[in-house]
Amino acid sequence: MAQKRRASQSPKKGRAGTAKTTAELKAVIDDLVMGNRILYVQDVVDSYGHISARHPRHSDRFLMSRARAPGLVVAADIMEFGLDGELVHPDERPVYSERFIHSEVYKARPDVGAVVHSHSPTVVPFSVTQVPLRPIRAAFFYPEVPVFDTRASAGWTNLLISNSALGRALAQTLGKNSVALMRGHGNVVVAPSLRVVVYRAIYTEANAKLLLQAKMLGGPITYLAPEEAALMDKEQSRQRAGHGHDRTWEMWKQEALARTGKLQ
Amino acid sequence: MAQKRRASQSPKKGRAGTAKTTAELKAVIDDLVMGNRILYVQDVVDSYGHISARHPRHSDRFLMSRARAPGLVVAADIMEFGLDGELVHPDERPVYSERFIHSEVYKARPDVGAVVHSHSPTVVPFSVTQVPLRPIRAAFFYPEVPVFDTRASAGWTNLLISNSALGRALAQTLGKNSVALMRGHGNVVVAPSLRVVVYRAIYTEANAKLLLQAKMLGGPITYLAPEEAALMDKEQSRQRAGHGHDRTWEMWKQEALARTGKLQ
Amino acid sequence: MAQKRRASQSPKKGRAGTAKTTAELKAVIDDLVMGNRILYVQDVVDSYGHISARHPRHSDRFLMSRARAPGLVVAADIMEFGLDGELVHPDERPVYSERFIHSEVYKARPDVGAVVHSHSPTVVPFSVTQVPLRPIRAAFFYPEVPVFDTRASAGWTNLLISNSALGRALAQTLGKNSVALMRGHGNVVVAPSLRVVVYRAIYTEANAKLLLQAKMLGGPITYLAPEEAALMDKEQSRQRAGHGHDRTWEMWKQEALARTGKLQ
Amino acid sequence: MAQKRRASQSPKKGRAGTAKTTAELKAVIDDLVMGNRILYVQDVVDSYGHISARHPRHSDRFLMSRARAPGLVVAADIMEFGLDGELVHPDERPVYSERFIHSEVYKARPDVGAVVHSHSPTVVPFSVTQVPLRPIRAAFFYPEVPVFDTRASAGWTNLLISNSALGRALAQTLGKNSVALMRGHGNVVVAPSLRVVVYRAIYTEANAKLLLQAKMLGGPITYLAPEEAALMDKEQSRQRAGHGHDRTWEMWKQEALARTGKLQ
Repeated sequence: MAQKRRASQSPKKGRAGTAKTTAELKAVIDDLVMGNRILYVQDVVDSYGHISARHPRHSDRFLMSRARAPGLVVAADIMEFGLDGELVHPDERPVYSERFIHSEVYKARPDVGAVVHSHSPTVVPFSVTQVPLRPIRAAFFYPEVPVFDTRASAGWTNLLISNSALGRALAQTLGKNSVALMRGHGNVVVAPSLRVVVYRAIYTEANAKLLLQAKMLGGPITYLAPEEAALMDKEQSRQRAGHGHDRTWEMWKQEALARTGKLQ
Repeated sequence: MAQKRRASQSPKKGRAGTAKTTAELKAVIDDLVMGNRILYVQDVVDSYGHISARHPRHSDRFLMSRARAPGLVVAADIMEFGLDGELVHPDERPVYSERFIHSEVYKARPDVGAVVHSHSPTVVPFSVTQVPLRPIRAAFFYPEVPVFDTRASAGWTNLLISNSALGRALAQTLGKNSVALMRGHGNVVVAPSLRVVVYRAIYTEANAKLLLQAKMLGGPITYLAPEEAALMDKEQSRQRAGHGHDRTWEMWKQEALARTGKLQ
Repeated sequence: MAQKRRASQSPKKGRAGTAKTTAELKAVIDDLVMGNRILYVQDVVDSYGHISARHPRHSDRFLMSRARAPGLVVAADIMEFGLDGELVHPDERPVYSERFIHSEVYKARPDVGAVVHSHSPTVVPFSVTQVPLRPIRAAFFYPEVPVFDTRASAGWTNLLISNSALGRALAQTLGKNSVALMRGHGNVVVAPSLRVVVYRAIYTEANAKLLLQAKMLGGPITYLAPEEAALMDKEQSRQRAGHGHDRTWEMWKQEALARTGKLQ
Repeated sequence: MAQKRRASQSPKKGRAGTAKTTAELKAVIDDLVMGNRILYVQDVVDSYGHISARHPRHSDRFLMSRARAPGLVVAADIMEFGLDGELVHPDERPVYSERFIHSEVYKARPDVGAVVHSHSPTVVPFSVTQVPLRPIRAAFFYPEVPVFDTRASAGWTNLLISNSALGRALAQTLGKNSVALMRGHGNVVVAPSLRVVVYRAIYTEANAKLLLQAKMLGGPITYLAPEEAALMDKEQSRQRAGHGHDRTWEMWKQEALARTGKLQ
């Protein structure tokens, strides 16, 4: 696979700049490792599913683990990929077949800084029924949560997004939304940053559970209004110590370390 | 924010009185820390939600953690608030946006000694459907469990009870009841004392699960009668060693320490 | 409360007999402590519920913990009760209000060697609906699982079986069956021996879950036939190393020790 | 029971061959022990259920634990059985009554290298209703998941597959499929190899949960198409480092060791 180098945001830099980049990159990798563990401990991913972050200095690259169960990922597993899903520094290690979910979303959505693909268990049933996944509490479900079906794009497949064409089709279905379901398979969640995408992936599952239970109770359901969602999303997008995803991250990190921390 | 000092029950006291107050306050803070941990371990709160206790000496103040995930709260996180939601001793630490749930309930309900706000997962579906949360076993659901909707009081909002006016409206909906639901958001549970409010918050979730399952079985449901509830509540309000919330507290404390105790 | 001594099976015995009795009693107490822990760890009881065993030498007595959460019970908590629910050796420690469930069942059912009372969560919904708890796999549900309602026997009460009359009424509803539900409250499970009653209590909850899910799938359900149940029960009543409750006990004991073993 | 020796694939071999066989056998036994633990920790089996592997050198034998809860199985528990369910090296230890599930499947299906029998909890409801267990994601559910009923084969029984005739009838119902349900009892899952059968048993339960939830949402369900399943199965059958069951095994092994590893 050719190692294409696309136009990159990274300026020329001297020794100090490199040190800064290294620290910045290390921080992203640390969060990415923790994000893998958190999604596992919070039951969003099982042995499958993956999370990536756009490279902090090269907007045409993203960081993601080698092919490995998220609950076991360590810093040394993180690899750099280009936007055609190719490895920037290829080596022998296996990579996720579905890396094209990530590459094509980063290509299509410059606003996206992090991507989760999961088989989040209560979300899948919404992908195979005609019941739309609508927001009880999840403001980021607006404008909508579309459903992607490989059958519509590519006929009979093994359902995996294992090439750029399928990734592109999925990204097109996702559009400007934050979540898209994948029929009989899972979902993709995107956000401007890694901690927010972890937050969204976890609350996507939580909202699916709430909606399933509300459906079981029966009768009309009062959904979150788009006007309310817009105000909530504005609030949640503010980065404030002790609030929003800053609060959740501290808790989830603690839980992830308690459950998986002995892995170096 | 002005630090108003309201009329307070605390008498003038000498050195011995201060020592007694300090011990009394320490006991409340210890219970409050444990209550935070218990609600987390018992799955009533996740990273969000909060619990407060009225100040044992100043009825116009209440004690609550700084803005932090309940599962991580330690004694040093507990702060004093006045009944307008203001800090008694302000410092730089972030505080819960929704402290007005607590301040306005304490203002409206002199009988209330402790308040829990949570997003208790099986309770939320009842807040967005027209199925009332009625008691299978939870005697404290009488007279009723009303539903508060920010939309009715304040139109489009981000659903947070982030000022005194919204807190007042919620307290008004709560009325003389022990539990009120908040549409698409969560619930508030109140009780005369901290251990009882923890008990009620946990059994609110438990009763919601029982009712959801009874609904799934279908057909008419035999609810707890108000006459039965009155007799149960009388029994449960007696403070007896080894009974009621004394028994549950010992167990829940043990579980909370086992799961979260390593946090100092 | 008078300490009545009823006719007892225990013969006069010398020193060797006493040693044997002591060892026999210790074995029952050890199993009773473990049974308490197992029922907690297997989610049949929470902080409430209790398990008792008939005294191995005095058929007119039974052994049960003082009023305490089952997950915390230790050998020193076990007390001896007579068949009117009275303490054989009274002391200051609080006792379960509902000990009359046990005393009256032992009185009415000489074949019963152990009793569990629990609020087993998936069983309660069957107590408040008109859906009978029928066997998918639980052979001991035959002849039937009747529902006891305090309302029918005693009008408005706090639902607790807190005296002999209520205990007697419950035992009458139980009849010759192994399980009876208690409306809006819980259930009672009986068996010839302690390990079997633990087994039955756990599989009562398991069968309730299976039936609830089968109901959710909809359509006719193939229940275990009484003829099949009779053959299964015969098989399960054989005490064989590595089979039946011998196999489950080894596993559950291991889990209980892992979760609660640090309590001495 | 006669120790029949059937025609075996194992060639005559010298000392080096024996060492190789021993290492090969040890590897299978290690995987079998881990498979027992994994199925327990992943909630497919409780104290009951069993997993076996065909002997790597003698195709007319299989390896399985003595009668013991899978979560407690150690290497010394593994015994060798012939295809009539007889022990190759009989000793005093109790064996599973339902070993005939395994023996008859190995006899009927030369392509099968490993078998799981479990009471996997969400699968049982499908065995007693008329709702077929169809694939949302589980490609190996094709051609179909038949239901075996002891009643149809043998009238009133205790439901156990406790002889060769019942095992044969079950194997006949299983046919060329990978999963068969057993009415009011459990299921049998087969695969070419041990790690794949563990994978299939776990995802059989997962698919049952997805389908139950989809049914609860209501309306038409889009199942995995047979054409899609064929492509998925082809993909999943490839043995690739970091992919398929290689990825899940690493994760599940880690979890199993964390939960049960202290047992030697």
